[in-house]
Amino acid sequence: MTHLDLAVPVELLAKALVDIPSVSGNEDRIADAVEAALTPLVHLEVTRLGNAIVARTHLGRPERVVIAGHLDTVPIKGNVPSEWSADGDLVGRGAVDMKAGVAVQLSLAAALTAPTRDITWVFYDQEEVEADRNGLGRIARERPDLVAGDFAVLCEPTQGVIEGGCNGTMRAEVRVHGKAAHSARAWKGLNAVHRAAPLLAVLAEHEPETFTVDGLDYREGVNAVRISGGIAGNVIPDECIVTLNYRFAPRWTLAEAQSRLEALVASSGIDGYDLVYTDLSGAARPGLDAPLAASFAESVARTGVAAPRAKQGWTDVARFGELGIPAVNYGPGDPELAHADDERCPVIEIHQCRAGLEAWLTS
Amino acid sequence: MTHLDLAVPVELLAKALVDIPSVSGNEDRIADAVEAALTPLVHLEVTRLGNAIVARTHLGRPERVVIAGHLDTVPIKGNVPSEWSADGDLVGRGAVDMKAGVAVQLSLAAALTAPTRDITWVFYDQEEVEADRNGLGRIARERPDLVAGDFAVLCEPTQGVIEGGCNGTMRAEVRVHGKAAHSARAWKGLNAVHRAAPLLAVLAEHEPETFTVDGLDYREGVNAVRISGGIAGNVIPDECIVTLNYRFAPRWTLAEAQSRLEALVASSGIDGYDLVYTDLSGAARPGLDAPLAASFAESVARTGVAAPRAKQGWTDVARFGELGIPAVNYGPGDPELAHADDERCPVIEIHQCRAGLEAWLTS
Repeated sequence: MTHLDLAVPVELLAKALVDIPSVSGNEDRIADAVEAALTPLVHLEVTRLGNAIVARTHLGRPERVVIAGHLDTVPIKGNVPSEWSADGDLVGRGAVDMKAGVAVQLSLAAALTAPTRDITWVFYDQEEVEADRNGLGRIARERPDLVAGDFAVLCEPTQGVIEGGCNGTMRAEVRVHGKAAHSARAWKGLNAVHRAAPLLAVLAEHEPETFTVDGLDYREGVNAVRISGGIAGNVIPDECIVTLNYRFAPRWTLAEAQSRLEALVASSGIDGYDLVYTDLSGAARPGLDAPLAASFAESVARTGVAAPRAKQGWTDVARFGELGIPAVNYGPGDPELAHADDERCPVIEIHQCRAGLEAWLTS
Repeated sequence: MTHLDLAVPVELLAKALVDIPSVSGNEDRIADAVEAALTPLVHLEVTRLGNAIVARTHLGRPERVVIAGHLDTVPIKGNVPSEWSADGDLVGRGAVDMKAGVAVQLSLAAALTAPTRDITWVFYDQEEVEADRNGLGRIARERPDLVAGDFAVLCEPTQGVIEGGCNGTMRAEVRVHGKAAHSARAWKGLNAVHRAAPLLAVLAEHEPETFTVDGLDYREGVNAVRISGGIAGNVIPDECIVTLNYRFAPRWTLAEAQSRLEALVASSGIDGYDLVYTDLSGAARPGLDAPLAASFAESVARTGVAAPRAKQGWTDVARFGELGIPAVNYGPGDPELAHADDERCPVIEIHQCRAGLEAWLTS
């Protein structure tokens, strides 16, 4: 088993984590290493649930902060083991999403033996795959007590800026129906691909809106992320399936967002279709008015970092939202480089995030 | 090996042929049976080329007629072995496309020991699959002497009416390009599916034309027979592939038809695309002005059958066209039922076609 030394400089810990392959569903090795590194620490109670590890202080503080990160990565593309770039970036799969953040967590979990708030450190599996496999969701279902708290920080990459809330995301399959026929006698059929044309036109012309929620701007988007139709080169397609992905601002509840998407589809004037949701993940309000969030934001602001901004992508902060726990994203790395083949994280951001959390948790 | 008795009533021969499964690529058994049945006939020279059988008379007649049919069928759907319907139809896979026609060929090949024109009977494999596997094409490439002649009759189903020529067919993949991005930040990408919208709109609005060629009406059609795009539910598609099938009248050469298709695509105003042809099969003019075709049409007309009409679907008559041999379609069965699960052929049409060919070939 790989031995993780939590006392080394945080960037070396990040590098060691990148060098343990942990593609979603294959987190055994990294979970073993994290568990083994945390278990000897007497100020922490360590609980393992599958490949998720929860480590809690029990100092009797009036407030508890949950600080969470996922251990898995998207598939490796020749970018493990990691290396240092010429300008000092950590380069490798997961450098951004999100082993640099996990390194910050582990480094502080070991160092902060007497934080000013009780802390629940959460390391979980299978964030990069279908929602129902998500390790944080599994803990919330099976052991909600393990993730209870007054405020949560998710160490997803934000370049060290606090990002509040997140857009929601839903996917719907619009199945446009037609009638099959031999393409030599197309007039006997009804071409489902042609019938879907007005829907694509509406999507192409749609101007996504930006909504301000609790002072932060959330940019929406509606996209066809998949399209398929046709079974053979000489058959008029009797079905065309357009998969829509609607990213919606936390101004809307899930039900409201569904109505908005359905109205957009209906506005195309297509008929003869079914709409089936395949994914429904609510948005999260920024929650920056929560007292702990405000104190965290103030603490980070004192280090000269930019003001909190909106998180455009959906993250597990929404899961905390569902549990009634205000949550923000805060971690090293540029989210635009997440999943990129040249994923890389500046060491300075890893240090800044560690320092930002440490200052707040000891003040 | 199944023994085929060519002397039985033609509908019983058709039934025996349907009962030998011969899905494209699996014609060994039926080819063996056909070869074994024809070889003993002293008035025929039998040549086998893979699973294609050619049987020729050599009577020194001034004209030679090629009469061709394919032995294969599309996949069986619980409709082999065959049965008789209550109203006397032969029901089963291939009853229409085209074992009833093959039965007419085999029955006459045995019976016509002294036809008024020399006859080349062609039975070939793999018509229902990719063009490059087509048995008739293989013979034309490898042994063009075996299919040489002055006129050809293809016994594809036409309900016993002479159908002249055929529409051409071409397939082109239009690959519309975009730029991938995470769908949470769609504005950083370019959605290829959305970009394809104007093309689908043009296809949906396109009114196919009908062209009269040599007195017969050919109805055209342009259809998207396949569409695909998108690689994941959270990625903006960087490519959308629309496969077009253009069925074009024999008014146009292949090159002219390509220009027409390309102009239609360009008229949509989409940009950032490639167009790649995956199938190019020329149209065939009806050829009813050829002397042998005219005599055949007159002979069939005397039996009270409707006047020749245009063949909408592409058939192997176009291969004869490429060889410079005028060709028509003439066979039992409703082409609309070809490939249908309830494929069925009226016995009366099998008799009529046998009688129509026999009358002409003995007059």
